[in-house]
Amino acid sequence: MALAMESSLPGVNSSDKGRVVTVFDRRLEQTECGEKIVSVGSGDGYAEFRADICQACGISPDEQFVITTTNRKPITHTNFDLIVQDGITLYLLKSPDQLLFSPTKEKIDFLPHYDTLVKSGMYEYYASEGQNPLPFALAELIDNSLSATAQNAGIRNIQIRLLFDETQGKPAVVVIDNGKGMNSTQLKNWAIYRLSKFTRGAAALSEDGIYVRPPHVPRSLNSDISYFGVGGKQAVFFVGQSARIITKNADSQDVHEFVLSKEDFEKKEINKEDIYSGFIRNRKPADSTHVTEDERFLHNLIMEEHEKKNFTAVVITGVQSVHVQFLKNYYHLWSRQLAHIYHYYIHGPRGNVLNKSKISAQALTNLDIEISMFERGKSPKIVSLRELRDDMQTLYINTTADTFEFKALVEGEGVVEGVIRYHPFLYDQETYPEDPYASSRNNDADDDDCFIIEKEARGKRPIFECFWNGRLIPYTTVEDFDWCAPPKKRGLCPPECYNRISGVLFTNDRFEVSTNKLTFLDLGLKLQDKNTLFTRIINGQEQRMKIDREFALWVKDCHEKYDKQIKYIGFKGTISRTDV
Amino acid sequence: MALAMESSLPGVNSSDKGRVVTVFDRRLEQTECGEKIVSVGSGDGYAEFRADICQACGISPDEQFVITTTNRKPITHTNFDLIVQDGITLYLLKSPDQLLFSPTKEKIDFLPHYDTLVKSGMYEYYASEGQNPLPFALAELIDNSLSATAQNAGIRNIQIRLLFDETQGKPAVVVIDNGKGMNSTQLKNWAIYRLSKFTRGAAALSEDGIYVRPPHVPRSLNSDISYFGVGGKQAVFFVGQSARIITKNADSQDVHEFVLSKEDFEKKEINKEDIYSGFIRNRKPADSTHVTEDERFLHNLIMEEHEKKNFTAVVITGVQSVHVQFLKNYYHLWSRQLAHIYHYYIHGPRGNVLNKSKISAQALTNLDIEISMFERGKSPKIVSLRELRDDMQTLYINTTADTFEFKALVEGEGVVEGVIRYHPFLYDQETYPEDPYASSRNNDADDDDCFIIEKEARGKRPIFECFWNGRLIPYTTVEDFDWCAPPKKRGLCPPECYNRISGVLFTNDRFEVSTNKLTFLDLGLKLQDKNTLFTRIINGQEQRMKIDREFALWVKDCHEKYDKQIKYIGFKGTISRTDV
Ligand SMILES: Nc1ncnc2c1ncn2[C@@H]1O[C@H](COP(=O)(O)OP(=O)(O)OP(=O)(O)O)[C@@H](O)[C@H]1O
Ligand SMILES: Nc1ncnc2c1ncn2[C@@H]1O[C@H](COP(=O)(O)OP(=O)(O)OP(=O)(O)O)[C@@H](O)[C@H]1O
Ligand SMILES: [Mg+2]
Ligand SMILES: [Mg+2]
Repeated sequence: MALAMESSLPGVNSSDKGRVVTVFDRRLEQTECGEKIVSVGSGDGYAEFRADICQACGISPDEQFVITTTNRKPITHTNFDLIVQDGITLYLLKSPDQLLFSPTKEKIDFLPHYDTLVKSGMYEYYASEGQNPLPFALAELIDNSLSATAQNAGIRNIQIRLLFDETQGKPAVVVIDNGKGMNSTQLKNWAIYRLSKFTRGAAALSEDGIYVRPPHVPRSLNSDISYFGVGGKQAVFFVGQSARIITKNADSQDVHEFVLSKEDFEKKEINKEDIYSGFIRNRKPADSTHVTEDERFLHNLIMEEHEKKNFTAVVITGVQSVHVQFLKNYYHLWSRQLAHIYHYYIHGPRGNVLNKSKISAQALTNLDIEISMFERGKSPKIVSLRELRDDMQTLYINTTADTFEFKALVEGEGVVEGVIRYHPFLYDQETYPEDPYASSRNNDADDDDCFIIEKEARGKRPIFECFWNGRLIPYTTVEDFDWCAPPKKRGLCPPECYNRISGVLFTNDRFEVSTNKLTFLDLGLKLQDKNTLFTRIINGQEQRMKIDREFALWVKDCHEKYDKQIKYIGFKGTISRTDV
Repeated sequence: MALAMESSLPGVNSSDKGRVVTVFDRRLEQTECGEKIVSVGSGDGYAEFRADICQACGISPDEQFVITTTNRKPITHTNFDLIVQDGITLYLLKSPDQLLFSPTKEKIDFLPHYDTLVKSGMYEYYASEGQNPLPFALAELIDNSLSATAQNAGIRNIQIRLLFDETQGKPAVVVIDNGKGMNSTQLKNWAIYRLSKFTRGAAALSEDGIYVRPPHVPRSLNSDISYFGVGGKQAVFFVGQSARIITKNADSQDVHEFVLSKEDFEKKEINKEDIYSGFIRNRKPADSTHVTEDERFLHNLIMEEHEKKNFTAVVITGVQSVHVQFLKNYYHLWSRQLAHIYHYYIHGPRGNVLNKSKISAQALTNLDIEISMFERGKSPKIVSLRELRDDMQTLYINTTADTFEFKALVEGEGVVEGVIRYHPFLYDQETYPEDPYASSRNNDADDDDCFIIEKEARGKRPIFECFWNGRLIPYTTVEDFDWCAPPKKRGLCPPECYNRISGVLFTNDRFEVSTNKLTFLDLGLKLQDKNTLFTRIINGQEQRMKIDREFALWVKDCHEKYDKQIKYIGFKGTISRTDV
């Protein structure tokens, strides 16, 4: 049932069309400035070509002149066929090194190299502070699924499946969602590098219409994380060498499939085919007749289509083996990292409060992000990110004694929501949570010399982590603001209290992030601006008082109310009790 | 003398060619699977089209069927001309929502959007620690000029000219070098996004040949900083909206000019012209007849061509006004930053040693990077980066009492050269240099309570700045290594000595950087690897001893030899001398 029709389609291969060249006659200063378009017959050699040119330009055949490229390489019998390609611009000159008496125009094509797609991700995701960036690439695909499921009436289901069972084919990373899916036009748009929701509406025949910015929601959890038109492509080509998108929307019975692969591009380059052309396969659901041995895991995946009205699956193959190793060996590390990135999407604006009795009516979200890993001979590892209880946000939230909410109004239209949390000192230790995976050289210092009661709590870490449209931008942190930094003069409470706070900032896309979504472009700069206005928020109400004072009082209050500090002062030596 | 030939060139506008569509007959389960190619006559309407299809597929004209798009939109009299474009794929179905009995293939084109170029830089350069990233964009253009002048026999001259005199036209940022220049093929390659020196050799008709990695030179100052085929484009479109490249190589008398502009792309989109086609202007030197009023400053620039055998000028216009403001107002800040980035290219492998008597035979480099700014009614500000004496590297080098050199051998082939410097405590203060522009909230703390002798010297800052192929990668720093971190146990000297060191790491391109050249991808990770081997180097010789011990002894030695610490211990109160 395989279809073989490439050769019959128009425009695929243009190499056997006739050649047309542009010739500028620049032999004499007075030569007429226009150019001549000369057709080269398919069997023509240099002699015929030269004769044609003589005729076209009115030159007597025995006049002395050379035909050169614009790089002044003379055309000869031997190089004629190699050099004189369709569309080339040539000169008629007295000699190859003569001056160009009047200017010429040379048509060039500068189609982006296919590395634009194939290498888009390779140099985009980088390590910071010992973090492997792979989870941040996966996050781009989750972002897309978040957008696609934003309007789901029921459960929003996003699955990351790691198919590492060799008996089922080569390793694959699959991201599947039950979102709205794409029709074939939208699937084509998926593949267009830099076609963003902003430019798409403008393009002719678009079915998406003009983009409308979503209204404000708390913590900017608007599921509108698509922005640049590059994320999916960068992510799949960071992870592997080939991506198959399988998708269906509710309006149609057809499933659409498209494969974008490094190998394909290379083949098209060699065959001189159009680099940015390809074929979408349209088919009925659950039809997996085209699946090859290498990807036989697709049969099962495609079988599932029976039950689905709409979905999108991104299937990455050619997965780099370092990535496979990392995904296998650090399963908990990276799932925990994803749970952190999407913490507020998974748990709602108040985050993962473990003691549910504390919150009367937390809106349960309908978003389920599930990770599963399949290895040969092992039972699958499956976890829903909602179940994780040790991502950093969960740890922060559940060691919080009190919170201080605020808003920052930045020049222009930017609004930043902020939360500061107090992690008290309890009995004999700080409750500011440790990152179990942080590289912690200083922790193993055993200080014999002095009796240490307090650890450093936050230590040198910045206070704030930053979320953009509700998802973490992992490499941008904000150290502090003037009003919440430890006071220079003696404050209202001991200085170590200022090390007991953590914080979160939430922005929408009025603040811009880099294309890899690892950093904000200028959030820090804007917040530092002296015109930025900070206001405390209590129960949703803006407070009039100066935030510096409000905050100092809040910290003092937290210290007095929550810190249960037992200091053993004046250690007198060990007493062995003999009376028990 | 204007040339008007666009319309006469082939391939520019294809909208009036005949339309060819592909039709899949999927009315019946048993329908033959192949597709039919149907030509649509230029005057044809829906009726003719339908009749043609009936004939092509052997359907009797009164049979019930619909023609739909692959998105299942039925073709009608009214939408026929809008929808049935050249190259489209259509279905013959019994009803629009029928199942697709057998699969179909739909040809799509997914040419990257022109934002690939126009927005390439916009979200790439980001602020870190309050730094405006604009100098890092300019650095990309300097990188290109470094590569281009690498083989210069005499002086390598690179100029950044800021043309902000409105009487001469709109604001422009110009980078000019006296490097090898480009012929028109190379100029075309300049414009091809992601065409890198690695892929270029492979492309047919390339004149550049296969890329050969340069041999190792000290500090990897190999001037080979081109890598991704994106830097120049990202930089010009970060700074402005249009770039004119003017270039000439020594082999030819012709100057080549090419303009890449946002406006142009938009025009081509509207006119449905090929997005990635354009015209190079080839002309004799000093011919500025094409220059418009807006860019009249070009007349002078082009006049200079008389004296030049080879050169490249990148002229950016449409410069964002925030950038103009920054370049004007922070002239010293950003020139100093560039002097830091290219410190070792400007001053040679040993850096800018101000007391030249200290070094017997420093190789003077032949590289001159000059910055000049022209404003209306003011005399131009001109500085050569070589003259700056307060970039951080110069400050580090000239407060150094002693250096500790080492090499890190990373698994694979990576070699990192490293230098650690000791900045002693002299009389009453640390000599570890302050960054005059660093935001320094802690410095103005006036501690009334205690008598402070020492400042913190390096403080919390990481030890190492990192250079890649000799140029600074500004946002990657390396905190320390195990062997040069302050010892956990009591060391051989006071712990504050470890705060008196600064350091530099030099890598070649075996270590990879992100496309914006702001960060290393995984230098930190690789150096932390336990298989990484560190060796001390003395006078170019690798030392056998363990580096931990070597380093500890070196610091101790530095402390004893160079620290001149006068501590006022046991302050007894002020004595008013009455005897003078
Ligand atoms: N899972 C999905 N379901 C439905 N549509 C999708 C899905 N993933 C991607 N798309 C469509 O493909 C487009 C391209 O995705 P891609 O991630 O490459 O860029 P983007 O999301 O638009 O922008 P960004 O660069 O910010 O990620 C999206 O805008 C969306 O329209
Ligand atoms: N000043 C110049 N002189 C001569 N050739 C240049 C100059 N600037 C750019 N080029 C040519 O244009 C090409 C493209 O430059 P561009 O900066 O866009 O990418 P690149 O330097 O190849 O890679 P990277 O992304 O690392 O900068 C260069 O590889 C070089 O061949
Ligand atoms: Mg996306
Ligand atoms: Mg470059």
